[in-house]
Amino acid sequence: MAHNTEVRADPNAPPITRILARFAAGHPSAGWDAGVDHAADRTVMNWLGCAIGAAQHPTLAAALAAIQELSPAPQATILGRSERVDIANAALLNGISSHTFDFDDTHLRTIIHPAGPVVSAALALAEHLDASGRALLDATVIGIDVCCRVGNMMYPDHYDRGWHITGSTGMLGAAAACARLLGLDADRTQMALGIAASQPVGVREQFGTMTKPFHPGGAARNGLIAALMAKHGYTSSPRALEAPRGIAQTYSTKCDWSEITVGLGEQFEISANTFKPFACGIVIHPSIDGCVQLRNAHRLQAGDVARIDLRVHSLVLELTGKKTPKNGLESKFSVFHAAAAGIIFGQAGEDEFSDGVVTSAEVIALRDKVRAIVDDTIDEAAADVSVTCNDGRVFHVRVEHAIGSMERPMTDADLERKFHGLVDPVLGEAKARRLIAACAGLAQAASVRALTALACP
Amino acid sequence: MAHNTEVRADPNAPPITRILARFAAGHPSAGWDAGVDHAADRTVMNWLGCAIGAAQHPTLAAALAAIQELSPAPQATILGRSERVDIANAALLNGISSHTFDFDDTHLRTIIHPAGPVVSAALALAEHLDASGRALLDATVIGIDVCCRVGNMMYPDHYDRGWHITGSTGMLGAAAACARLLGLDADRTQMALGIAASQPVGVREQFGTMTKPFHPGGAARNGLIAALMAKHGYTSSPRALEAPRGIAQTYSTKCDWSEITVGLGEQFEISANTFKPFACGIVIHPSIDGCVQLRNAHRLQAGDVARIDLRVHSLVLELTGKKTPKNGLESKFSVFHAAAAGIIFGQAGEDEFSDGVVTSAEVIALRDKVRAIVDDTIDEAAADVSVTCNDGRVFHVRVEHAIGSMERPMTDADLERKFHGLVDPVLGEAKARRLIAACAGLAQAASVRALTALACP
Repeated sequence: MAHNTEVRADPNAPPITRILARFAAGHPSAGWDAGVDHAADRTVMNWLGCAIGAAQHPTLAAALAAIQELSPAPQATILGRSERVDIANAALLNGISSHTFDFDDTHLRTIIHPAGPVVSAALALAEHLDASGRALLDATVIGIDVCCRVGNMMYPDHYDRGWHITGSTGMLGAAAACARLLGLDADRTQMALGIAASQPVGVREQFGTMTKPFHPGGAARNGLIAALMAKHGYTSSPRALEAPRGIAQTYSTKCDWSEITVGLGEQFEISANTFKPFACGIVIHPSIDGCVQLRNAHRLQAGDVARIDLRVHSLVLELTGKKTPKNGLESKFSVFHAAAAGIIFGQAGEDEFSDGVVTSAEVIALRDKVRAIVDDTIDEAAADVSVTCNDGRVFHVRVEHAIGSMERPMTDADLERKFHGLVDPVLGEAKARRLIAACAGLAQAASVRALTALACP
Repeated sequence: MAHNTEVRADPNAPPITRILARFAAGHPSAGWDAGVDHAADRTVMNWLGCAIGAAQHPTLAAALAAIQELSPAPQATILGRSERVDIANAALLNGISSHTFDFDDTHLRTIIHPAGPVVSAALALAEHLDASGRALLDATVIGIDVCCRVGNMMYPDHYDRGWHITGSTGMLGAAAACARLLGLDADRTQMALGIAASQPVGVREQFGTMTKPFHPGGAARNGLIAALMAKHGYTSSPRALEAPRGIAQTYSTKCDWSEITVGLGEQFEISANTFKPFACGIVIHPSIDGCVQLRNAHRLQAGDVARIDLRVHSLVLELTGKKTPKNGLESKFSVFHAAAAGIIFGQAGEDEFSDGVVTSAEVIALRDKVRAIVDDTIDEAAADVSVTCNDGRVFHVRVEHAIGSMERPMTDADLERKFHGLVDPVLGEAKARRLIAACAGLAQAASVRALTALACP
């Protein structure tokens, strides 16, 4: 048997497992400016709204039915539902529901959705520990920093290789957040990161199935259990991330160690977290934004339109090139459907990706008029949209940065409107308002249980 | 951002996810010759002995302490212990203990230890379902076939890349075994394989830490939960294994589809499962065997020996090249320690890899006299051993196939002796004897609970 025993060892790899562990264990509480805390409040609120909004979705129902076969102890809240499960399964289930609508937060440099793995684990554990809101925010900022920095280190090679990067870095963020909440020292935090390192979750082939949202859920559970194991003395390689047979070099070709070390503890990746106005993959947001802009500017109706031409980055068709989506889930991976929805409805929330809308004759008719081609001059964040009308008029817009991007972020009011849209149908408008206030007041909350108590019917 | 969007798509990839699902769901019970059932009996017995033997090890104690924080329901047996946990955590914990001593079974073509992920999941679920021994054997044969065939498909590239192949294929075997026990049809079994496909566990950097035995445990748990989720309608990609962004092409460079399809349902990989006489990684067994042979043939004692020269395959030093192991766990990755133990003790069971033995002056003194060099003419299964005595005599043996290999398998009597060595100290000799009988009689057992009841104090 011929083995390739050549290891891509990097003798200059810094001890990043140790470096991240010391950061997670030792960085001062609230050791950052107010803008970082505000980003954390927004991240928690957006994640909470997505999870509550999907509480009754068949995806969560199927996962919960399976977990109930384990007769889990009622330790923690399933967001938006009255059942309770143990903290590991709460992390799993809330991670699943928060990503079910593809409406959660995005760290644009890596396309990681960091709240799913990190906050799902942290809130379940914080509720169980009766931790303060401050402790939850600290764990959130630190956990998201860990997984997004690891993402920066490996992106894009790791993602291009086929990994769903949210689940294949998120377990490290979840482990860091939970180690922090448990008060583990740097040595045990390092072991927690190592145990989590062996448990990446997710390949991109699952996009369009229920297993996509399983990825952040599984990562949340894996990270939480890793931290509990480390607390009790379970060991792992202290160089699990950077060693020649560690994860960076097993899961990726690119390993840019400086992404871990430069600015650690000074700049925080949560500041680069963004929130979606549209309930689908981020790469088609510029196209939708362009369609909505043309619709509103020219009062377009579906019947006016002869054709829609999109010029997009190659990743758009690679990820969302489904021409004839058969249901709501598949439609999130169809730039054709999304563009049609933007023209017809002027928005693309969860309703516009429902089975009924996707299979309606009007939507299908317009969808079939959408053409998309790859244009190498167009950035991942951009799209070029032209609408040709039956009467011969042609309208055009080039979107350089879609609404929801770092350059055109959603305002707090936008986020609150989105939150109400998700939460009101499940818990009612009054509870939604109180939850918004609870998120904004997390830094002062003596216990996160004030928040979790509001998050179920 | 420059993406490498070229996907290594293979237009000729057969639908192996579907093929394996149909096999797992549809192959007749006991649809093989008696030799296959005998291999399954031996596999279950050897795995059971390893798990019970490690029941009090600090590795399992730390893992169990973490899991107890989840207040798990007492659904299933932890082998060798009186506590009970839910079936997912029983799969995890029994998977950990069965691999803690590195003494479990080995599928030599891939170095997969298949019982850890497959039987740990299957027995926990079978106990809960009150399934028959026949059903457990069927699930074992089928689950091991699935993960070892996937291993054959990707080995050695997948392993060389850094994956601990037991945990990164085992979740598929566990899912197949549990889907079989649950009676899922081919469609749902296919979904179970898909959900499991997103959850590989383990990088080789963890070798020598407690996280190595976590890998089969995590794979067992992941496969079991995947099957439960599929039972309740959770979906995944029906092409999770073979699609361009599926696991074969994300986790490996080599994807030899014929390893899945050729002989499926006719030849069974469990027939190629082997059992270890020595409690350490398989690659150093030929070296130990050679040392034991020379010791016994020439009545060598440590004080007689001036030097020991080993000529070995490159993988031996890559995997077990630790020159100065500091404790029992590390000593399993030291061909130097193992050779010295072979000369001094004439055997290399768990005791010879204990902290006390590893740090004893006599062992260290002889270990320092061991030299090992890579010889490219020597096969992975072989070793060339020379012992030079202080009086100038030189003894030499070339081991082509170590005891425990396919060519020189352990007999049933050997396996029973090994089982007693592991189980007697934990449960007593009488229970060990009854457990051996229960394993041999599995095909006739109305319920696996007769076995699990014997497997705890």
